Amino acid sequence: MKGKIFYGKGMVSIKDEYPDIYEAVADLNEAVFTGKVLDYKTQKLIAIAIAASNSDKRAAEKQILSAVSEFNVSKDEIMDVLRVVLLTSGMPPFIKAVNILNKVFNEK
Amino acid sequence: MKGKIFYGKGMVSIKDEYPDIYEAVADLNEAVFTGKVLDYKTQKLIAIAIAASNSDKRAAEKQILSAVSEFNVSKDEIMDVLRVVLLTSGMPPFIKAVNILNKVFNEK
Amino acid sequence: MKGKIFYGKGMVSIKDEYPDIYEAVADLNEAVFTGKVLDYKTQKLIAIAIAASNSDKRAAEKQILSAVSEFNVSKDEIMDVLRVVLLTSGMPPFIKAVNILNKVFNEK
Amino acid sequence: MKGKIFYGKGMVSIKDEYPDIYEAVADLNEAVFTGKVLDYKTQKLIAIAIAASNSDKRAAEKQILSAVSEFNVSKDEIMDVLRVVLLTSGMPPFIKAVNILNKVFNEK
Amino acid sequence: MKGKIFYGKGMVSIKDEYPDIYEAVADLNEAVFTGKVLDYKTQKLIAIAIAASNSDKRAAEKQILSAVSEFNVSKDEIMDVLRVVLLTSGMPPFIKAVNILNKVFNEK
Amino acid sequence: MKGKIFYGKGMVSIKDEYPDIYEAVADLNEAVFTGKVLDYKTQKLIAIAIAASNSDKRAAEKQILSAVSEFNVSKDEIMDVLRVVLLTSGMPPFIKAVNILNKVFNEK
Repeated sequence: MKGKIFYGKGMVSIKDEYPDIYEAVADLNEAVFTGKVLDYKTQKLIAIAIAASNSDKRAAEKQILSAVSEFNVSKDEIMDVLRVVLLTSGMPPFIKAVNILNKVFNEK
Repeated sequence: MKGKIFYGKGMVSIKDEYPDIYEAVADLNEAVFTGKVLDYKTQKLIAIAIAASNSDKRAAEKQILSAVSEFNVSKDEIMDVLRVVLLTSGMPPFIKAVNILNKVFNEK
Repeated sequence: MKGKIFYGKGMVSIKDEYPDIYEAVADLNEAVFTGKVLDYKTQKLIAIAIAASNSDKRAAEKQILSAVSEFNVSKDEIMDVLRVVLLTSGMPPFIKAVNILNKVFNEK
Repeated sequence: MKGKIFYGKGMVSIKDEYPDIYEAVADLNEAVFTGKVLDYKTQKLIAIAIAASNSDKRAAEKQILSAVSEFNVSKDEIMDVLRVVLLTSGMPPFIKAVNILNKVFNEK
Repeated sequence: MKGKIFYGKGMVSIKDEYPDIYEAVADLNEAVFTGKVLDYKTQKLIAIAIAASNSDKRAAEKQILSAVSEFNVSKDEIMDVLRVVLLTSGMPPFIKAVNILNKVFNEK
Repeated sequence: MKGKIFYGKGMVSIKDEYPDIYEAVADLNEAVFTGKVLDYKTQKLIAIAIAASNSDKRAAEKQILSAVSEFNVSKDEIMDVLRVVLLTSGMPPFIKAVNILNKVFNEK
């Protein structure tokens, strides 16, 4: 499914042990990332924004990695997302996301 | 400044009584919504996503109203934003935002 | 679906306008509330706890109403849930949920 | 107990119906607001900051009202608290708290 | 006190240095986990749900460990708790808690 | 700027690569920590409270370190801040902050 990079090994174990949950999540994931109008890339940027706003370092890193590998999203594009995080969610979530962004792009 | 609809009457009082705060916020707002790469409309969609994810009804409504009046954003576009909110933040924030979306588009 | 009282009119509009989202949510809902071991009533109490912990008054009220109508859950049972909210989430979410609890049981 | 204005009618019902919870909360409240070094007024300002940062309008209003009635705290003092909220938590919680602040001081 | 495993070494230092806080917390803890109707095990499951919903990895792990050691709670039981987290709080907190769950049960 | 210790290396990279964001944040920071009435030390204690309430370990540690180095704030003073966190935000954020506090003061 789309976003499979995002979910990581936790989702693999779910698939084996709790296939009913796996299937429901896979279907939801499909319904979510098959927008009617917005493209998948914009939806990925939105997912980065939400993860960063919630100070969720793990999700932010996974979403950024996936956006880079799937859409070759640039650092400037993600920083434009994080600008909105700064205004709406304050300095601490912004700085955390900036550190992740730097880590991802320096390791490339 | 961009997004002035969003801030409402609270910001008017700040301008009068605490001009140093007003100026700092206005400058930050300018730096935020003048992305290097992403357009202002995409940044607005991101702001809607963050407000909805945080179950912030007031901010979600103001951002949706502003996106509609400034960019003529459609209901389907905003629902594509809210799809990501559903997956990342769960049913309660999603349903709250759907109710606001319906209210805004039914009142048009 | 189980919990249909919870979702309210927002979900009705989704069913009409965005059937793909509706179906994914209905399936997820089914997978969630068909626990392997825990009964549905315990899962409802858990849903009340999460709503109260998040200071989500709307969800807390809907979940409490649904727990009362579906399982005849008592005020004392819900207060035992809210005791845990008090310890883990602090006074403000606790008091908000207590006010809702009183409202629901006084109106009965 | 200190802060009794804050807790409102929810706490009254707890006292009647669940005296064990009431007593535990009253003792905790006493231990909290009897700081070793900081005075009670500073602790009240901190409680306002936390309520505002969490976008908790009800708690923010109650704490502001209590700070004003117990310590005659000024609008400028509370705005200095909210400045920190702006930086650490972003515009939406800040503006919500500013609106409450204006309401409280305009109604005086 | 009940739940002592949960609090860890931080609470030990509090007991030594700030006995007034320790006593208030111990009393609160006692009042919380001595529900009138629900049993302690159900309250533990609720505490797991709240920790997971808040993406609080540390608290989730401690609560899961304590539920396993005190009540021999099964993986399936905790997954039934996490199903509710998935629906109400979204994928990222769910996956984080699943990873902790796997870690706890694989290390057994 | 005030609070520069707080922001760490993320802010250094922003200064180089995104000077418009840096300048806006520096100005906001200046407006925030130049309160009209409250002194800078009280504002620092408020920043600690908000970080701790949000379970933000990174920000709590940086704010505590900065409060200690800039104002020689004592452990008891910070514990008086954390007392309010305990009441308003629950045990898990309180214990996390206590652990950080112990770490900072034991390493001195």
